[in-house]
Amino acid sequence: MTTETARPTHRNENENDGTTYVHGYSDTEARRLGDQADTLAELLHAGTAYPAGSRVLEAGCGVGAQTVHLLAAGPGMLLTAMDLSADSLAQARARVAAQAPDADVSWHHGDLHRMPFPDGAFDHVFLCFVLEHLPDPAAGLAALRRVLRPGGTITVIEGDHGSAFFHPQSPAAGRTIDHLVRLQAAAGGDGLLGRRLHPLLTAAGFTDVTVRPRAVYADGGRPELAEAFTLRTFVAMVEAVRAEALAAGLTTAEDFDRGIADLRRAAEPDGTFHYTFFKAVAVNP
Amino acid sequence: MTTETARPTHRNENENDGTTYVHGYSDTEARRLGDQADTLAELLHAGTAYPAGSRVLEAGCGVGAQTVHLLAAGPGMLLTAMDLSADSLAQARARVAAQAPDADVSWHHGDLHRMPFPDGAFDHVFLCFVLEHLPDPAAGLAALRRVLRPGGTITVIEGDHGSAFFHPQSPAAGRTIDHLVRLQAAAGGDGLLGRRLHPLLTAAGFTDVTVRPRAVYADGGRPELAEAFTLRTFVAMVEAVRAEALAAGLTTAEDFDRGIADLRRAAEPDGTFHYTFFKAVAVNP
Repeated sequence: MTTETARPTHRNENENDGTTYVHGYSDTEARRLGDQADTLAELLHAGTAYPAGSRVLEAGCGVGAQTVHLLAAGPGMLLTAMDLSADSLAQARARVAAQAPDADVSWHHGDLHRMPFPDGAFDHVFLCFVLEHLPDPAAGLAALRRVLRPGGTITVIEGDHGSAFFHPQSPAAGRTIDHLVRLQAAAGGDGLLGRRLHPLLTAAGFTDVTVRPRAVYADGGRPELAEAFTLRTFVAMVEAVRAEALAAGLTTAEDFDRGIADLRRAAEPDGTFHYTFFKAVAVNP
Repeated sequence: MTTETARPTHRNENENDGTTYVHGYSDTEARRLGDQADTLAELLHAGTAYPAGSRVLEAGCGVGAQTVHLLAAGPGMLLTAMDLSADSLAQARARVAAQAPDADVSWHHGDLHRMPFPDGAFDHVFLCFVLEHLPDPAAGLAALRRVLRPGGTITVIEGDHGSAFFHPQSPAAGRTIDHLVRLQAAAGGDGLLGRRLHPLLTAAGFTDVTVRPRAVYADGGRPELAEAFTLRTFVAMVEAVRAEALAAGLTTAEDFDRGIADLRRAAEPDGTFHYTFFKAVAVNP
């Protein structure tokens, strides 16, 4: 459920080896992230429209899947988009050039823990599916707060894989989701971060912290959402860790595949699927 | 998460022995249901306001916790409120007499599977936290469809205990919720019914089936909701099956109590709690 590539540690010299980014950097993944962002744009971006002239930092822009939606909602904003992966950043530039050619974007290749920007350089900070990959999200929030001016806002969007439930129920499907959560934890992340947003932002010193769930619910009355979200976004994300889950000895091929088949079953006309994202907005006092 | 007492089987001669109603019939439970209904009234009843003169059946009105909200939103409606428990019905009458003395309500003591009403007797049917207690919810929906006129609507509200998640995470708390679900299943019900509403209504022959999640989310920014919903509604409901869970050998007192303590922990200022209700509206073609 991530579109971001900001990796927190400096140990890894190879930017794109995928060892700390649980979802990998393949072309298939880049397409999945674009599909996901387009499907969820209205749900996740509603309420976020930065004024013309405002200085906005998107931390961990990844392949630009959210960037184009930010720019569409905030014409005239002055956006700085940063990411730890040069490859992802190049894809984001290409996406923005194609979809928002007139946008004013500065591209920055770097780590959000070591940003060269002066204190208070931005009016607003935006990050989507980034904190879930940081071993120390509190440190990440502290770094972001430093570059935010007093009175400026931070907007954070995260998923929570423990929020997923579906019909028909399936223990195998539940275990398969758990494997993704476990692999993400082994990589230093937290696939259940959504539920922690309020305490994390509060502990980081932000005020007026407002967190609201934004749910995706697909049933037989919304077959296009079952296709776009349940199958092409969620199941695709879980299925992508198959090789890694097997290599780690977490499960057997048979059990993993049964879990995936059961998740797909929930996208049929008499199935249902429910997932909750969280969107937080807070102020730097 | 139930306020209803409609029991589907005819085997039990003692209306109030509590053997098939997982939440019991105590005064404490009646108070809990009232608190819950008041806390959730806006969330659950928004969008439901029956016109003056319309003939409405509330099936399984229980102690009247939802009835008073229906009447407040629909002055002039002609309500028939029915329940299988004479005691609950008496409490509902007293509640309505106190809170909506001018309302036009017919009280009916009976089983929704054997209603004496003619075919198509009602313009609208409403039920809240009832299907979750029926061993055969499809049969219940068929019986309700019979008394609904062509073109009339059915509105169904259900919870889904599998939707609950919280911070800090706790396997013990998860197990404790599972005990409630298991006991409810042993009594012939389904504490995870919310996710099944769309397929159940569709299979029962209703059309224009629209199901939407309605989420409750409490965090440190909403301490009154953490108190009213997390503690006084959800934890109270789970805690009420303690003796039954121990008697059934599902758990130890120590483990159960740890689960309850961990659920209470989620209501502290740095905790979070999330639960999803589902509201369905459908048409009898």
